[in-house]
Amino acid sequence: MKRHKPRVVILGGGFGGLATAKALGDNADITVVDRHNYQTFLPLLYQVSTAGLAADHVAYPIRGALRSINGKFRMGSPISVDHKNKTVKLDSSEVLPFDHLVIAVGSVTADFGTPGVNEFALGMKSVHEALTIRAEVMRRFEDLCRFEDDTKLSIVVVGGGPTGVEMAGALAELVRGPLMNDQKHAALHIEVSLIEAGPRLLPSFSPKLSEKTKSALEKLGVKVLVNHAVESVMRDEIALKSGEKIPAEITIWAAGVKGEPVISKLSLPLDGNRLSVYPTLAVTNYPNIWGVGDICGSKASDGRFLPMVAPVAMQQGKFVAAQILRREKGEELKDFKYRDKGSMATIGRHKAVVEVKNIRFSGYPAWATWLFLHLFYLMGGRNRIGTIVDWCWNYFTFDRGNRHIMDSV
Amino acid sequence: MKRHKPRVVILGGGFGGLATAKALGDNADITVVDRHNYQTFLPLLYQVSTAGLAADHVAYPIRGALRSINGKFRMGSPISVDHKNKTVKLDSSEVLPFDHLVIAVGSVTADFGTPGVNEFALGMKSVHEALTIRAEVMRRFEDLCRFEDDTKLSIVVVGGGPTGVEMAGALAELVRGPLMNDQKHAALHIEVSLIEAGPRLLPSFSPKLSEKTKSALEKLGVKVLVNHAVESVMRDEIALKSGEKIPAEITIWAAGVKGEPVISKLSLPLDGNRLSVYPTLAVTNYPNIWGVGDICGSKASDGRFLPMVAPVAMQQGKFVAAQILRREKGEELKDFKYRDKGSMATIGRHKAVVEVKNIRFSGYPAWATWLFLHLFYLMGGRNRIGTIVDWCWNYFTFDRGNRHIMDSV
Repeated sequence: MKRHKPRVVILGGGFGGLATAKALGDNADITVVDRHNYQTFLPLLYQVSTAGLAADHVAYPIRGALRSINGKFRMGSPISVDHKNKTVKLDSSEVLPFDHLVIAVGSVTADFGTPGVNEFALGMKSVHEALTIRAEVMRRFEDLCRFEDDTKLSIVVVGGGPTGVEMAGALAELVRGPLMNDQKHAALHIEVSLIEAGPRLLPSFSPKLSEKTKSALEKLGVKVLVNHAVESVMRDEIALKSGEKIPAEITIWAAGVKGEPVISKLSLPLDGNRLSVYPTLAVTNYPNIWGVGDICGSKASDGRFLPMVAPVAMQQGKFVAAQILRREKGEELKDFKYRDKGSMATIGRHKAVVEVKNIRFSGYPAWATWLFLHLFYLMGGRNRIGTIVDWCWNYFTFDRGNRHIMDSV
Repeated sequence: MKRHKPRVVILGGGFGGLATAKALGDNADITVVDRHNYQTFLPLLYQVSTAGLAADHVAYPIRGALRSINGKFRMGSPISVDHKNKTVKLDSSEVLPFDHLVIAVGSVTADFGTPGVNEFALGMKSVHEALTIRAEVMRRFEDLCRFEDDTKLSIVVVGGGPTGVEMAGALAELVRGPLMNDQKHAALHIEVSLIEAGPRLLPSFSPKLSEKTKSALEKLGVKVLVNHAVESVMRDEIALKSGEKIPAEITIWAAGVKGEPVISKLSLPLDGNRLSVYPTLAVTNYPNIWGVGDICGSKASDGRFLPMVAPVAMQQGKFVAAQILRREKGEELKDFKYRDKGSMATIGRHKAVVEVKNIRFSGYPAWATWLFLHLFYLMGGRNRIGTIVDWCWNYFTFDRGNRHIMDSV
C-alpha cells in the first residue's frame, strides 16, 4: 500500500520557509503561505534603499520557487490555528488542514519601546520600506537642490550591527558619488551618521574588526557615534539618553528585530516574542508544529537565542524538513545544531569585514567574498544576472542608476 | 563682448523636454522641471504591467541625463507663468526667470467623459500605474488560485491602438505562459479581451496589418471586439453603447490621451486641450514660449493634429532647440515638419507589425525591428543592459520574473 504524503503547511515564504519546502521536495504535499507573493532577499534591501539595485531584483516569485516541487502557494496571513482538528485558518477564510505545520513567519522591526520610532523612523524590513527610504532620501536631496544656502540634511542610521553599518556605508557612497555628480552644493550639505548604543560597531565581531569598520566608515564621511543610546525619535531630531539632541531629518531604524507579532494569534507557547521550541525545533508541547528562522526561539549551547539571520533560517528549514520525514517514518528525532559559517558586513567599495571563527579579514578580499556569497545565495538566475549587471554598472561608472522617487503617482 | 547664454526653462522631462535640453547643450542655461525625478520610457510601460520588465528599467534619472550638458533640474510642477516678467512659478514657490520657456508637459489618460473610467479603470501613463496593473492582475490571479471552481477573471483592455494591442498581447502571453505554469486551473479561467470602438484594430495602419494583428491576438487567446463602443465602466463590468454588458473585473484604459491639464494654469492659448502654436512651434502670440510633444497642438499638412507619440516629441524637441538658437542669433525661424519614420506595434513573441510609408511587414522581421529600435531609444546604458537581460530571460525561459505584488506594505 502506498503511503500517503504528509500535508505540510509552511507559514512564511522567506529563507526558512522556502528552505523547508525545497528540502521536503516531493516527499510531502506542501502549501506555503505568505502575505507577499514573492520572497524578499533581505540582506540586499539596503542596496535598494540606496539606489544600487532595482527593487524587482531583490524579490523572487514564491510560485516560481515552488514549481519544481509542485508546491502550492496561498497569499495571505494566518489568523488562527485549530489545534484539535489540525487546521490553520487564513485571513481569506480559507482553512488549510495539515499533518505538520512549519512556522517561519520571520521578524519585524523592534523599537524596544522607544517613543517616535513607529511615527518618524523608517524601517528596513520590506521592499516597500526600502523604496520609501530611497524616495525619502532622493526627495530631501531634491529639496536641498532648491536652496543654494546652508540648509543641511542629516540622515541618521540607528543601530551599529551589520544592517546599520551596511546602510550607513552605502548611503555615504551614494552621497559622495552620484549625488555629488548630480548637484555638488546639495551633496556637500548632507551628513550621514551612525548611532550605536553599545561601545563598538558590529558587537558580534572581534573588537579589531569593529575598529576597522569604524575607521572605514569615517573615511567615507560617516559620523560614527558609539555609546549613544536613543531616548526618542522626533520629526527632525533624535533625543539621546544623555540629554543631547542631534538633528535627524531622516531616521533609519536598524537597531534590531523581534518575532513577527502574528505569532500571538496562533495560541502557541512563546519564549519572549519567539516560539518556545525543543532542541528538535518542535514547538513545546506541539509535536507536529515546528519553528524555523527568526521566529524560532532555539538556543545555542550557551543558552542564548540564535541570531536572527538568513543562514540560521536556511539550516533550520532543511533540518525541520528532515525531522518531519523522520517523524513520518517513526524514526527518532535529532537536535538542531547551528553551524556558524561566519559573519560578514560590507561597508563600501572594496571595503568589508569577514569573520569565520578565528579567521578574520577585511578590505578587498572580504569585499570580494561578500560579493561572491551574496550572488551565490541570491535566488533565481534572472535576479542573479540582473544584480550582476546593476553592480557592474555601479562599480565601473561610480554611478547608481536607480535614483527614482517611485512612491507616489 | 561675450554673449550671454539664454536662460531656457523646460517644463517636462520626457522625450520632448530632454531632446530639447540635449540639443541646446552648452548653448543655453537650462533648467528642466518635472514632477518626477526620472524620465519614464512610456512605450515599454506595458511590459512592467505584465511582469516582463523591472520597474526601475523603464525609468531614467533626469539629473543623470542632464549631467553632460550641465543642465539644472527642479522637481515640481508649474503653477503659473508671469508673462510680463518672464518667470514661471513652481509649486515649491520657487520662481524661475526665463528667456525662453519650452512646454513639454505631455499628456494624461483621456476618458472622453465616459463614466466610471476614473474610478474603476486602470491607466497606463506612469510607472505607478503600471505597477498597479501588475499588482492587480497578480492579486486577482492569487484570488482565483484559492477557489478551484468555475470563478472567472475577465481582464478587458479598452482601445485598439498600439498601446491597447501591445497590452492585450503581453497579458495573454503572461496568462498562457508563466501563470499557466504557476497554477493551470486558475490561468485557464482568465480571459483577456480587447475592445475597440472603431471597425478595426490599429486604425493608423493599413487594413491588412489590422487584420493580421487581430488574428495574431486571437491566436494568443485574446477575445477581440471591434465596433464595440464603451458606454460606462463599472466595478466588475463594462456597459457597451449597444446596451450589452461584458464582465470586466479589471479594466485597463488605453483608449486615448489628451494634453496634460496643468497647461490650464499657464494662461496660454489652447487648441482643444493642446497648446495653440504657429508652424514654428512658438505658442500663438508668445514668441518666446514653445510647445513640444504631446502638449503641442501642431498640425500636419492635412490640418490634423500630429500623433501623440515619442518620435514627434523628439523631433520637435530638437527642432525647438534650433529655433531658440535661431531667434537668439536674429535668424529667421523655420516651420516644423514631422518626418514620419513609420509606426510599429508588438503583439507577442515573434509577432509584430511595422508600417513605414508603403512598406509593411509583420511577424518575425517586424518583431526583431521592434526589439532593436526600442533598445536603441532606451536611455541609459544600464537600462539598456538590464532590459536585454530581462528580455533574454523571458525569451529563453518563457517565464516572467517580475510577478511581484509590490503596491502595498
